[in-house]
Amino acid sequence: MAFPSFMEILDFIGTFAFAISGIRLASAKQFDLFGAYVVGVVTAIGGGTLRDLMLGVTPIWMTNPMYLICSGIALVWVIVFGKRIINHQVTFFIFDTIGLALFTVVGVEKTLAMGFPLWVAVIMGTITGAAGGVFRDVFINEIPLIFRKEIYALACIIGGLCYGLCGWLGIGSVINECISGACVFLVRILAVKYHLGLPILKGEDE
Amino acid sequence: MAFPSFMEILDFIGTFAFAISGIRLASAKQFDLFGAYVVGVVTAIGGGTLRDLMLGVTPIWMTNPMYLICSGIALVWVIVFGKRIINHQVTFFIFDTIGLALFTVVGVEKTLAMGFPLWVAVIMGTITGAAGGVFRDVFINEIPLIFRKEIYALACIIGGLCYGLCGWLGIGSVINECISGACVFLVRILAVKYHLGLPILKGEDE
Amino acid sequence: MAFPSFMEILDFIGTFAFAISGIRLASAKQFDLFGAYVVGVVTAIGGGTLRDLMLGVTPIWMTNPMYLICSGIALVWVIVFGKRIINHQVTFFIFDTIGLALFTVVGVEKTLAMGFPLWVAVIMGTITGAAGGVFRDVFINEIPLIFRKEIYALACIIGGLCYGLCGWLGIGSVINECISGACVFLVRILAVKYHLGLPILKGEDE
Repeated sequence: MAFPSFMEILDFIGTFAFAISGIRLASAKQFDLFGAYVVGVVTAIGGGTLRDLMLGVTPIWMTNPMYLICSGIALVWVIVFGKRIINHQVTFFIFDTIGLALFTVVGVEKTLAMGFPLWVAVIMGTITGAAGGVFRDVFINEIPLIFRKEIYALACIIGGLCYGLCGWLGIGSVINECISGACVFLVRILAVKYHLGLPILKGEDE
Repeated sequence: MAFPSFMEILDFIGTFAFAISGIRLASAKQFDLFGAYVVGVVTAIGGGTLRDLMLGVTPIWMTNPMYLICSGIALVWVIVFGKRIINHQVTFFIFDTIGLALFTVVGVEKTLAMGFPLWVAVIMGTITGAAGGVFRDVFINEIPLIFRKEIYALACIIGGLCYGLCGWLGIGSVINECISGACVFLVRILAVKYHLGLPILKGEDE
Repeated sequence: MAFPSFMEILDFIGTFAFAISGIRLASAKQFDLFGAYVVGVVTAIGGGTLRDLMLGVTPIWMTNPMYLICSGIALVWVIVFGKRIINHQVTFFIFDTIGLALFTVVGVEKTLAMGFPLWVAVIMGTITGAAGGVFRDVFINEIPLIFRKEIYALACIIGGLCYGLCGWLGIGSVINECISGACVFLVRILAVKYHLGLPILKGEDE
């Protein structure tokens, strides 16, 4: 058992924050403890699992129990601190955005490392970051938020393209990770701060 | 970059038509541009992706960007022409049915080529043609249409069985593709024209 | 064509019972015959299919047509006997619980046989037993029951841990299957009889 690397610690923080978001929404729908935990886990690892299935590799959570443990800690956290969490909306937004940034970079790198072209890697990065939230919303029987809210998945796409650009410019792996992750982070923060969103599609009156 | 084959052109027409159907339904639910695009893509390639995951091969859209590009063209189409599309219901119904027919044949052939028996191939053909619409309806939070509407998936099943029959009779691949595709097309057209549907199951009063 | 083994017969009984549960719920939502059949099939084999995709092997239903045939018999059963089924709630609850117990044991064994650690096997057993019901509820557009009802998935988890414990104690495969399956069965029966459930999570007033 070695000490976790810096990237792993960030990965676990992202998992924790994503799990919290799933558990909080499940608690608003009167889920029991098990149901809330499952929704938390799916929010945290659903995107990475879908990515790994499409890449044809063993889903990441099956190789390291930390993802399930982090989700369990998130459940205990919500049980213990309950309503006080509301007062830390900003903290959790920051955590969630760190998770989004990191998951995107991890997804892009893993896909490129398997020899797929950049456009596939950008989509896989976006799926890693954003698909868990879609599964969460399907489970709690809501229309997925990211299809209607301010910019979210677009931040992943921009970050993924940034990664490709930096790679093309010959920027090394670690620095590229930092730049691309920061790019996702900034786009998301700015989108929420200035209420930036994509236009609503109105094709028909129905 | 070679010219696309006749089959590929039909494939792209089917993708375009399926994407339009997803984007139109998403626009009725106030999705933003990104959300509408995702629903369009999932409608178009969701069935083929599920098939490829179960067959254990890389999903088709990861090997050729044309599927995502066709879906993008569909999005632009809906943005530009908007309401006028309503006046072309019949045109889109024809496109959609061509897509259904072709996707079914592609799914059956791919599965048989991997050595699976006919009954698996028929199911895979049906999944290729019909599962994308199920994912679409889950995302827009509706009960999947194909479970309640006129004959849709049954057309795929009949076409798949037709493919098996023709193969058993020794009919060559290209002619078989045409006959089976036409079979799917005709069953679907006749079902809609004469409002043919399967009986509703009423097991219990609830 | 050999005679089915005792385990296979139990497997088919479980498939039949799970398919009935899907078909009954679909009939309450006015699904047509095809839609009801699909929901029945997905309830019965959805969990095993998800497990096999994550394990990286061909989904079990693609290797043996019995799963689809059992689901077809379940459909005919509901059509023929209709409302009278209501009077056999207890019988079907017993069948369903046998299915749950057996699917859990099958999932745990298959995962351990592929070299994964026990904690992955327990999760895979739970997915095999419980995920089909989640897919069913997503298709009929309801919040999954197992996230809110009495103990269900927890019975799978306890059974899976029991399997690991017995294996650690050196108890042979067949006896271990019986003990662990009985464990799932008993936990589920007791939970329903005494209305045991997990606490509802109330993190926030919303």
